[in-house]
Amino acid sequence: MPVLNDEVPDEGDYDASRRRGEFDDITPDDFIRGSGHDNPPGWLDSSDIDRARRQLPIVYVEIVPVRTDELGRISKVGTLLRAGDDSAIERTLITGRVLFHESLREAVARNIAKDLGDIALPILPVSLQPFTVAEFFPTPGVSEFYDPRQHAVALCYVVPIAGDCKPQDETLDVEWVSPAEVLRPDYLAQMPGGHDRIIRRALAWAE
Amino acid sequence: MPVLNDEVPDEGDYDASRRRGEFDDITPDDFIRGSGHDNPPGWLDSSDIDRARRQLPIVYVEIVPVRTDELGRISKVGTLLRAGDDSAIERTLITGRVLFHESLREAVARNIAKDLGDIALPILPVSLQPFTVAEFFPTPGVSEFYDPRQHAVALCYVVPIAGDCKPQDETLDVEWVSPAEVLRPDYLAQMPGGHDRIIRRALAWAE
Amino acid sequence: MPVLNDEVPDEGDYDASRRRGEFDDITPDDFIRGSGHDNPPGWLDSSDIDRARRQLPIVYVEIVPVRTDELGRISKVGTLLRAGDDSAIERTLITGRVLFHESLREAVARNIAKDLGDIALPILPVSLQPFTVAEFFPTPGVSEFYDPRQHAVALCYVVPIAGDCKPQDETLDVEWVSPAEVLRPDYLAQMPGGHDRIIRRALAWAE
Amino acid sequence: MPVLNDEVPDEGDYDASRRRGEFDDITPDDFIRGSGHDNPPGWLDSSDIDRARRQLPIVYVEIVPVRTDELGRISKVGTLLRAGDDSAIERTLITGRVLFHESLREAVARNIAKDLGDIALPILPVSLQPFTVAEFFPTPGVSEFYDPRQHAVALCYVVPIAGDCKPQDETLDVEWVSPAEVLRPDYLAQMPGGHDRIIRRALAWAE
Repeated sequence: MPVLNDEVPDEGDYDASRRRGEFDDITPDDFIRGSGHDNPPGWLDSSDIDRARRQLPIVYVEIVPVRTDELGRISKVGTLLRAGDDSAIERTLITGRVLFHESLREAVARNIAKDLGDIALPILPVSLQPFTVAEFFPTPGVSEFYDPRQHAVALCYVVPIAGDCKPQDETLDVEWVSPAEVLRPDYLAQMPGGHDRIIRRALAWAE
Repeated sequence: MPVLNDEVPDEGDYDASRRRGEFDDITPDDFIRGSGHDNPPGWLDSSDIDRARRQLPIVYVEIVPVRTDELGRISKVGTLLRAGDDSAIERTLITGRVLFHESLREAVARNIAKDLGDIALPILPVSLQPFTVAEFFPTPGVSEFYDPRQHAVALCYVVPIAGDCKPQDETLDVEWVSPAEVLRPDYLAQMPGGHDRIIRRALAWAE
Repeated sequence: MPVLNDEVPDEGDYDASRRRGEFDDITPDDFIRGSGHDNPPGWLDSSDIDRARRQLPIVYVEIVPVRTDELGRISKVGTLLRAGDDSAIERTLITGRVLFHESLREAVARNIAKDLGDIALPILPVSLQPFTVAEFFPTPGVSEFYDPRQHAVALCYVVPIAGDCKPQDETLDVEWVSPAEVLRPDYLAQMPGGHDRIIRRALAWAE
Repeated sequence: MPVLNDEVPDEGDYDASRRRGEFDDITPDDFIRGSGHDNPPGWLDSSDIDRARRQLPIVYVEIVPVRTDELGRISKVGTLLRAGDDSAIERTLITGRVLFHESLREAVARNIAKDLGDIALPILPVSLQPFTVAEFFPTPGVSEFYDPRQHAVALCYVVPIAGDCKPQDETLDVEWVSPAEVLRPDYLAQMPGGHDRIIRRALAWAE
C-alpha cells in the first residue's frame, strides 16, 4: 500500500531516450512545462529509483491544499481519494518526489498540477520555510511517519487553491471539508502512514 | 518624525459618542467594514493613546507588500511614500496599531486597505506566525528599532498584493521595485527607524 | 477566574514613588535585575492597568516549559498549579505581560524566574519568531482564546529548562509529564481559556 | 573545490561488509554511537554516492554554530577552517549528508560531533522547522547556492554550542567572531557557494 505518491505506476510511460544529455541545457521552467503527459526530466526508471530508495533518503514535498477566506483563514481542507495498489480507495494529501535539478517550488507546482489539474491556481508560499518536516522511515515505529518503500524527508506546505480542481492521474476525487470535520477521528483514521499527523500540524500552525 | 504610522493625524475625526456601549454587540467584521472614512471602534482619542504610550507596549502589525510570480517568488517589493510631520517625504512600509477587540488578521486587512485602497486584493498569510517581531523602543540605541513616540511590538508579515493600488490617506504613492533594488544601500537608507531591517529580514526569510 | 497571570495580586507591593523619572536612565538589564521581590519598572498600578485593558490589546509572552533530551526532543512538558481567585487550584502555563521598555527576551526570562525560581536555567530561543500567536479576547467565542479581563496578544515560545525549579509566588507546584500524557483529554481539560490549545500547537510544532 | 562537506575523503575507511543486513535491527542511536572512527550505517561507497548524485537531490543538514548569552542572543558565530581539495584553506559551516535511516536530529548531532568533537554540547532545536532551506544546484546561476558535485537540499539550523570545541577530521580550526564581524563583506567573501547567504539568513532570522 503506497503511502507517498510514487512514480512507479508511470514507469512504463518513461522514455529513457529523452534523459541522457537533456540536463545539459535544462532550465528550471522545463520542469513546469514538462508536467503534462510525459514525464519530466529528472524522472528515474524503476530500477534506478528502487536502488536509490535502499541507499539514501529521498526528498519529497507534501502539500495540504486549502480554501481560504478573504482574511486568509482556512475554510476548507482538501484531501485526495485515490485507488491504491490493492484497488482499495485511500485518502491522502498531495505528495511527490523532488526531481533531479528541480527546485522545491517547481516540485510543489508540478505535483499540484498533476493531482488537481492545470487550472487549480495554487498560491505558492512566499517563503520555503516548511511548517513541518516529516521523516518517513521504512521501519514501522521508528518515527510517526511510515513508508514501506523508502526513507523520505518531506517538506510540508499549506497551499491555498484559488481555481478549479480537475482531478487527474490516479486521483479519483478531491474532497473539501471544514477544518473541524477533517480533524474528526474517523476522518483522520482514513489517512494512514502519518498523513493525519501532517494535517493536524498544518492546522495547528495555521491556527 | 513619525516612524510607525499614527492615528494622531485623524484624532479630530474621532467621534467619542460612538465608542461607549459599542463593544457590546461588536463583531470582528465591524473592524473591516469600519475601515473607511470613520474611525473604527477601538480607536482612542489622543489623550488616551498618549497616556497608553507612556505606560505599556503597543501592539502593531507591519506589512511588507509584495508582488509574486506564479511560483510564489517575490518579483517586486512595495514601499510607501508619505508626507511626514515636517513636510519631508519619507519612505515606509504599511504599519498600524492593532485596535481593542480587533484581530491581527483584521488589523492587517484594515491597514492595507487604508494605505493601498479597497481593490488591492491582499493575500493574507495562512499562518499568523510572523517572519519577525520588531521591538521599537522610544530610547535610541536600545534595539535596532526606534520609535520616539512609544514602545511598540510589531508582528511583521509579507503580504502579496494581487490587485490594484490606490494610495490613500497620507500615502502619496506606492513604489514597486525588485528585491535587488530595494536592498541597495541608498534605497534602504531612505527608511529610517529600522524599517530597512524589516525589509532585509523579509527578503532573507522569503529567500 | 484569571486566565492569564496578572499583576493585580501584587498591586499592594507596588511603590509608586519609584516610577516617575525612573525611565529616563533605564537599561534593559534593569528589568532582569528588577525581577525579585519588588516590582520592576514598567509595572502599572491597578487603575492604570485596568484602564489600559479596556482600551487596547496588551502584549503578553506565554511560555511552555519543557525538558529535552540530548537530541532536542521534548521528554517532559511542565505545567503550573496555582491558587486561583476563588481558591480553586488551576493548571496553567507561564504567562506574563511585557512591561513598558522591557524586551521580549527580558519578559520571557523574568516570567520564568518569577514562576520557577532563579536556578531554573532556561534556554531562551535563538529566534523570537513565536511558534504561535494567541489572541485572547474578553468576549467568549470570538476566538479560541478567552480572557475575561482583557484583549491580549500572546507571543508563545517553547523554552527548555535545564536547571532546578523552585516554584514561587502564586505558583504552588510545577508538574512535569510526558508529551503523551499532557495531550490526554482529561489533562488538557484542566487548562481552560485556550492554554490547552497552546500546548497542542507547541507539540505539533516541536514534533 | 568542495562546497558541501563530503564523505568522499573517507571512502577508503568504509567497511562494505558491515552494511548488508545491518539495517534489520538498527536503532536510531546506532547513528549517534556510530559517529566515531568508523563510518556509520547508511554510508555509501563512492560509486554509489556518485551515481545517486547524478540522479536525484541529496538531503543535507547545514548548521550555523553559535555562542549565546543568557537571554538567548547570539554573541558569537562559529565558522570552520578546512583544507580544501587543492590545499587551499576554505571557510565553511557544518554540513553533512543525511544517511539512510538516519533522522535529521541524528544527522545534526553526528555532523557537529564530527567537526567540533564530542564535548561540544550542542543544544539542538526543539523544532525541526528550519530557518531556511538552501537548494544547491550543480549548475552555476540556477539558484543562489552552487555545488559542483550535486543537487542538494539543505535544511538549515542555528545550534548553540555550550561546550568545548576540539576540531576534528578535515576541520583545522573553529573561529568565533561576533555577528557584526561575520557580516563584514570581506569575511562573507571567504565563504563561497552560498554559505555566506545562509549566515545572513540565520542572523536575519535570529535578529
